[in-house]
Amino acid sequence: MTTMKEHKTNVNGKSHKGVGSDRYEVRLSGSGGHGVILACVMLAQAIGLDPHRNVVQTQSYGPEARGGASRADLVVAKGDIFYPKTMKLDLLLAFTQEACDKYYQDLKPTGLLIVDSTMVTKVPTKNSYGFPFLRLAREKVGHPMVANVIALGVITELTGIASREAIKSVVKARAPRGTEEKNLKALQVGFDLAKQMRRR
Amino acid sequence: MTTMKEHKTNVNGKSHKGVGSDRYEVRLSGSGGHGVILACVMLAQAIGLDPHRNVVQTQSYGPEARGGASRADLVVAKGDIFYPKTMKLDLLLAFTQEACDKYYQDLKPTGLLIVDSTMVTKVPTKNSYGFPFLRLAREKVGHPMVANVIALGVITELTGIASREAIKSVVKARAPRGTEEKNLKALQVGFDLAKQMRRR
Repeated sequence: MTTMKEHKTNVNGKSHKGVGSDRYEVRLSGSGGHGVILACVMLAQAIGLDPHRNVVQTQSYGPEARGGASRADLVVAKGDIFYPKTMKLDLLLAFTQEACDKYYQDLKPTGLLIVDSTMVTKVPTKNSYGFPFLRLAREKVGHPMVANVIALGVITELTGIASREAIKSVVKARAPRGTEEKNLKALQVGFDLAKQMRRR
Repeated sequence: MTTMKEHKTNVNGKSHKGVGSDRYEVRLSGSGGHGVILACVMLAQAIGLDPHRNVVQTQSYGPEARGGASRADLVVAKGDIFYPKTMKLDLLLAFTQEACDKYYQDLKPTGLLIVDSTMVTKVPTKNSYGFPFLRLAREKVGHPMVANVIALGVITELTGIASREAIKSVVKARAPRGTEEKNLKALQVGFDLAKQMRRR
């Protein structure tokens, strides 16, 4: 297992505080069926393979969490995580306009917003990345359910929050039997998307 | 959706503080492959269908969480949950001896311990329930992977932490395609086990 290094993502010319900083907060959001909870569980597990990181992964259910938007959070730190709930997000992934509208306020001004570009047409900031995750899942992998795994590929590649090897091993282990190849292909689609984006 | 009532479980003559109390903490533990995280996500989601409950579901990864034992926690309360990490457990499920040995110290003295009776042979208290979840999954459902769902059936039936309807709908929705019936059957096996136990 490689040790992750501090990684600075340059979002439209604005430096994004990377995961090497002491506390890094992530939220994956969408609606039911987008698999954001499973994606967040997998991401947390992959990060947790690094012996130098602690991770707490949470989802909340209650009045504030009900309604159409579904979400899952994680906090990663080098040291102990005393307060495991997210406070101000460093990274927000939104698969839907509703999730974007609802959670954008929780993102730090320097935070990284990643949206599904087909679903989220009103983006509240210029500091964002848009990818057609859901469309690519259908067209490139032939399976709309793997949009979440494409997003995991993008997130790990852009931020270095987990190593490629770590996220691959977790995605492979958690994929329902018979879908391992499709899930690994989806992950690769995500890696490639992020690499193209960084080359611009 | 029925509103859940306070439910007191009588464990070997000792009253167990039920889920009607303001804060109730649950940990599901085992080793990788027992599906404790997915089970905890499903339980949290089922509880969250009750508009009178708030739930935070967490898993931690880091030095303390590494090693063989896998775990997932949830906290349920009627009011706001300011501290989402578990402090003292009201209910601990242990699928393995290692998980039982590791986490029993986190259980309240009046807490409810539920173990896999085939796997956990050294039980640290008389206040416990033992069920052969893994064996029953193979023998009654024909699928060792559903032991976690049998345990969900037992837990919901024993504690009333979620309604039968709520846990059924969540298990059905989250079951991989084609396994819905096996998962619902596993849940019913769990309901029946708990009912038999309460009749003693």
